[in-house]
Amino acid sequence: EVSFDPKEHQHLRYNPLRDTWVLVSAHRMKRPWAGQVEKPPEEHVPRHDPSNPLCPGNTRANGEVNPDYDSTFLFENDFPALQPDAPDPGSDQHPLFQSKAARGVCKVMCFHPWSDVTLPLMKKQEVVKVIDKWAELVEELGATYPWVQIFENKGAMMGCSNPHPHCQVWASNFLPNEPALSDRCQRAYYQKHGEPLLLQYARQEAEKKERVVVESSDWLVVVPYWATWPYQTLLLPRRHVLRINDLTTEERGGLADIMKRLLTKYDNLFEISFPYSMGWHGAPTGPSLKEDNSHWQLHAHYYPPLLRSATVKKFMVGYEMLAQDQRDLTPEQAAEKLRNLPEEHFKTRGH
Amino acid sequence: EVSFDPKEHQHLRYNPLRDTWVLVSAHRMKRPWAGQVEKPPEEHVPRHDPSNPLCPGNTRANGEVNPDYDSTFLFENDFPALQPDAPDPGSDQHPLFQSKAARGVCKVMCFHPWSDVTLPLMKKQEVVKVIDKWAELVEELGATYPWVQIFENKGAMMGCSNPHPHCQVWASNFLPNEPALSDRCQRAYYQKHGEPLLLQYARQEAEKKERVVVESSDWLVVVPYWATWPYQTLLLPRRHVLRINDLTTEERGGLADIMKRLLTKYDNLFEISFPYSMGWHGAPTGPSLKEDNSHWQLHAHYYPPLLRSATVKKFMVGYEMLAQDQRDLTPEQAAEKLRNLPEEHFKTRGH
Ligand SMILES: O=P(O)(O)O[C@H]1O[C@H](CO)[C@@H](O)[C@H](O)[C@H]1O
Ligand SMILES: O=P(O)(O)O[C@H]1O[C@H](CO)[C@@H](O)[C@H](O)[C@H]1O
Repeated sequence: EVSFDPKEHQHLRYNPLRDTWVLVSAHRMKRPWAGQVEKPPEEHVPRHDPSNPLCPGNTRANGEVNPDYDSTFLFENDFPALQPDAPDPGSDQHPLFQSKAARGVCKVMCFHPWSDVTLPLMKKQEVVKVIDKWAELVEELGATYPWVQIFENKGAMMGCSNPHPHCQVWASNFLPNEPALSDRCQRAYYQKHGEPLLLQYARQEAEKKERVVVESSDWLVVVPYWATWPYQTLLLPRRHVLRINDLTTEERGGLADIMKRLLTKYDNLFEISFPYSMGWHGAPTGPSLKEDNSHWQLHAHYYPPLLRSATVKKFMVGYEMLAQDQRDLTPEQAAEKLRNLPEEHFKTRGH
Repeated sequence: EVSFDPKEHQHLRYNPLRDTWVLVSAHRMKRPWAGQVEKPPEEHVPRHDPSNPLCPGNTRANGEVNPDYDSTFLFENDFPALQPDAPDPGSDQHPLFQSKAARGVCKVMCFHPWSDVTLPLMKKQEVVKVIDKWAELVEELGATYPWVQIFENKGAMMGCSNPHPHCQVWASNFLPNEPALSDRCQRAYYQKHGEPLLLQYARQEAEKKERVVVESSDWLVVVPYWATWPYQTLLLPRRHVLRINDLTTEERGGLADIMKRLLTKYDNLFEISFPYSMGWHGAPTGPSLKEDNSHWQLHAHYYPPLLRSATVKKFMVGYEMLAQDQRDLTPEQAAEKLRNLPEEHFKTRGH
């Protein structure tokens, strides 16, 4: 009988953070692509655009004028999906028609006054300021809200409608589906194995090496064994850390470093400003602050859509939506490709 | 206090088929859109393209020549994600590095010999032939495989790389995540309430009317109470039916009718060939054929990506990937819009 080769033979892999499986069919990369081609990301973004509502000094949709900020800049989303005061839908509820109140706040945070930079091109100290602000927001909003979701949609391909470097922070009075699932999975693992899932995982990956993309004394980035998006990564501290606001000053510096290294590799992969959605998951907040959350480990997920080139993405469509996620290269192949890319950004090479 | 208005006040709705919640923030439609604009679907597809591998008489990637078919045409996917003979990855398994064998077959089925028709533009009897073939495939492949996923990716926006009308059928030796979840949810509901979830649901929706899009004596189409995609629909038989191959001749005729009516409305919404991914969920097959599956009810899901127009889709990105699905209009608003559209196709209007 033929012996198993993950690059040639489709198989399933288990995602212990979501209790689901992914179909890995790496031989599918051989298929030619005659489908949709994306517009590559905008190459020449002006440093300051007088009509861009995110730039310093400009006027936003609601008439407010941005300050002449020179670092990060935080404001309320002008079209928030969550508002603090929505009334309760009430509770005449048939089990098939259940609704619940949703309350919260949506904030936008600019990373930098310039529209033509991105995190990998910013100075380390500038990235640290972003991290400090993230920590501050989790501290403040997390004092009452059970979940504070920090996320960045980067690139038009990921539904981002503004090229200015920014992220969003949505805090809610409920624990959303994804963190609720991750909470259950991490808790069950901890109860069974007596150690946090992601601490054990990081240790094993650091030993195995084949899925490591970049690492430092405090941080580790891998293409997880169960990655669904082609170049998906998982960013983890090596120490047991529950929430981003628990990071020490030194760890924040290390995080700025490793983010710059990872994102430089991403940009270098297809020599474009690499699109992705990313976000942080840490232990729940609000009422959970008083509970034991030892099963949690802080981490960030990066979900980039591209598969073959700057213009051909992976479509998560029919089979994926109705049956199961499927990927076209192995996580080990993706990690090797990223690992072998230079750590100098293609835009500053030779400068 | 202000009284609750689902169009103005964000809230959560429960999806009983997936045991998850969706955030409904209908006031978000007021936000202007400055983001990515899609290419509208190709308008002039030639009836026969000598270079299209799906057309009758043409040669495919593997050198095989298609017959000169005049109805449906079925063949093995030339780049299958599932093959019948992949070796087992073995079982030296750490709980964080679990893999499993995946075996199966991937088939492609052309709906019609012409590239310039789609289901709503085909004759009823031609659509019945498609349904008969679906039933035949579930019967045949389901004799051994536990899951047979019929799905259609329609339009380049949904990763479809060929304009010729076709669907895919992937049968696997495992029950994929989505049907496994749906199976658990339907089973638990049945145990608790003594009636299949979707039978109770269809009855209630037929009475309430506000989410109904089209209906007939045998079939019902609604924008489900828990829809995530803007114009998502759920197609259901009114009778308790486990699998597509259990449909009577009359019900197949009725299904062809209601599919044509639904898809005509979809095309009329933005006056384009409406993109979507759709697929069938019925009771599991293979070993499950011998088990009691009374909790199941056959149904089809339609997931269309468009939100605002022929060229602006809903992006399920940062918050959706990392936290929870979010929608920008209520299911009732979507249903009303679809319900009020004419049942005559915009392309044949006035002919
Ligand atoms: O099989 P196709 O049509 O080539 O490919 C399409 O459908 C598949 C199943 O949903 C997806 O995995 C692919 O990403 C998509 O491009
Ligand atoms: O809030 P934005 O950037 O306008 O909107 C973007 O991110 C949101 C959160 O992931 C999504 O719901 C929207 O579909 C997307 O276009």
